[in-house]
Amino acid sequence: MNKTPLALLLALAVVAPPLAAETQMSAPAPNGMTVPVGWQNWRLIAVSQRSDGDTLRGILGNTVAIDAARSGKTNPWPDGAILVKINWKQKVSETFPAATVPDHLIHVDFMQKDSQKFAATGGWGFARWLGLEQKVYDKGDVAQECLGCHGMVKNQDYVFTHPAPMP
Amino acid sequence: MNKTPLALLLALAVVAPPLAAETQMSAPAPNGMTVPVGWQNWRLIAVSQRSDGDTLRGILGNTVAIDAARSGKTNPWPDGAILVKINWKQKVSETFPAATVPDHLIHVDFMQKDSQKFAATGGWGFARWLGLEQKVYDKGDVAQECLGCHGMVKNQDYVFTHPAPMP
Repeated sequence: MNKTPLALLLALAVVAPPLAAETQMSAPAPNGMTVPVGWQNWRLIAVSQRSDGDTLRGILGNTVAIDAARSGKTNPWPDGAILVKINWKQKVSETFPAATVPDHLIHVDFMQKDSQKFAATGGWGFARWLGLEQKVYDKGDVAQECLGCHGMVKNQDYVFTHPAPMP
Repeated sequence: MNKTPLALLLALAVVAPPLAAETQMSAPAPNGMTVPVGWQNWRLIAVSQRSDGDTLRGILGNTVAIDAARSGKTNPWPDGAILVKINWKQKVSETFPAATVPDHLIHVDFMQKDSQKFAATGGWGFARWLGLEQKVYDKGDVAQECLGCHGMVKNQDYVFTHPAPMP
């Protein structure tokens, strides 16, 4: 196989193709954040389950976030890091009852680190889009609602997620 | 910004950099499978939780698998598809008790579709590597042990996982 840099780049392009831009159609969040294009292709940081509401979650990060997670530099997370938490309602697996698996998508939550732009909310921009149609969540004061919980972990830069151990 | 194809490819290369090759040091599985280089960069297909053993899982796929998952062509999965299930012991979050989060890594399981090569085991090669050191799991007849459960879902091409809904 011809291993020129260009061939390598082409191979990588297949690994992470650009997504269709339909999510860009979603309205911006109250703080001005827009849905990052291609977040569905971001890499895994962790998973979680919540007993209040019975949800399963996958937490992905953009390149800045992944680099920080894999080098242990997450307190604070660097400017430019974006985390996304995908929230599914959970259900019992139809084929393996001891397993809990994703049901429908409820919402997708983003945290974007920008110490200056979002200085008023801990250096993080918070945003949520609902359902497969990614309708913006804009009821009430979204940022303060998010900080109501995330403020509990100010000492870990407002982020609950710890990167899960990976080989 | 200069949007030439080369610039785009360079940008994508940053999105999915090649991983270090240390996982290649793991011994091959009994069926000859080796740890796929860079699986930690694969994209998310689903998450799950298991009450028998108290584990959280992330399921990723290589490009062939992701293309199949996103186009709904997973019964059968195409030859060349590789799925990986990362298994963590679960623990209660120290900062949010309603949340269950990953503790240590237990094992990483792969299913590789090759209808001819793995015809004797439903068209799938099964392999497992243990812990962060990725020690090969080779006790007993691994393939038959895997099929002992996966055979239950022969009608969905031996795969329990359904791709989780994504926007």
